[in-house]
Amino acid sequence: AIAVAGAVQAADLTPKEQIQTRQAGYSFMSWNMGKIKSNLEGNFSQPQVQAAAEAIAGIANSGMGALYGPGTDQDIDDVKTRVKPELFTNQEEVGEVARNFIEAADNMAEVAAFGDEAEVKKAFGQLGESCKACHDKFRKD
Amino acid sequence: AIAVAGAVQAADLTPKEQIQTRQAGYSFMSWNMGKIKSNLEGNFSQPQVQAAAEAIAGIANSGMGALYGPGTDQDIDDVKTRVKPELFTNQEEVGEVARNFIEAADNMAEVAAFGDEAEVKKAFGQLGESCKACHDKFRKD
Ligand code: HEC
Ligand code: HEC
Repeated sequence: AIAVAGAVQAADLTPKEQIQTRQAGYSFMSWNMGKIKSNLEGNFSQPQVQAAAEAIAGIANSGMGALYGPGTDQDIDDVKTRVKPELFTNQEEVGEVARNFIEAADNMAEVAAFGDEAEVKKAFGQLGESCKACHDKFRKD
Repeated sequence: AIAVAGAVQAADLTPKEQIQTRQAGYSFMSWNMGKIKSNLEGNFSQPQVQAAAEAIAGIANSGMGALYGPGTDQDIDDVKTRVKPELFTNQEEVGEVARNFIEAADNMAEVAAFGDEAEVKKAFGQLGESCKACHDKFRKD
């Protein structure tokens, strides 16, 4: 359980809350990636894929960069972070993987609205690659 | 940190992962509610409000009901849940608060895209009420 009580200002989140909130965003995206994957592997429900894609795109576009503020580069009490130091020093490369990711998420949502399964599969593969590109560079195993 | 590794099927989440994932969704919405609130209290940035509203609407429409599966009505190991038993027995009322919430979230996203501050304020108030309506009935303090 995360102690983000009620409505708080972005800038008002403590470093600990920022770590918890970014992990929450990634976890929720991951669940929705899993739903798209299982749709591609089993019965394909266009509305479910579209809803999942829109949740991911909404999170991708929400400005998660604000959740990497000062002090969020290390574990805080019982809250562990897997972020690598490079994320805080290599702004240019972070910007590039983040832009690729947002583009792939937007494309996934567009394609899902249309609903052609082969296109969805392609967009899903590209989106997954964009997650992985960031993890390879900026997340510890 | 939540142990939802890679892409998993909705139905494949363990009860523990379901609790963690629904808390992740609520926490991420809460952060975005906070951003809208601070926009209404300070400098109003229409793009930031729209992005926050779309993240909330995406999560609201993602089918979170699937995260209240069997076994998720109680704490599991170190994962505590605040859900009340009523959520699992009072399907009709749950459906009603959930529908009101989704409607309020969709309306918030629509109004945010247009960007009139007074309208945003009204939609934000209604959305907050729809969160509270659920918490009053189905979440422990
Ligand atoms: C711009 C970089 C970046 C992108 C893009 C990105 N991630 Fe991550 N992800 C991270 C970092 C950094 C962490 C570690 C966060 C921490 O522990 O503080 C992380 C953590 C996670 C976690 C673990 C969350 C937890 O509870 O600890 C999951 C799951 C995850 N990402 C899935 C995804 C998925 C799925 C996508 C794409 C749809 C994605 N990520 C896109 C950088 C990224
Ligand atoms: C349909 C019911 C329902 C709606 C609608 C709802 N919530 Fe909740 N919320 C819950 C329940 C139930 C829990 C407890 C979940 C648990 O602990 O397993 C919860 C938990 C939370 C938490 C704590 C999460 C954590 O990490 O433990 C926050 C924050 C929250 N909600 C914010 C919101 C916001 C903001 C909205 C609206 C934008 C909202 N909720 C809409 C039912 C709802």
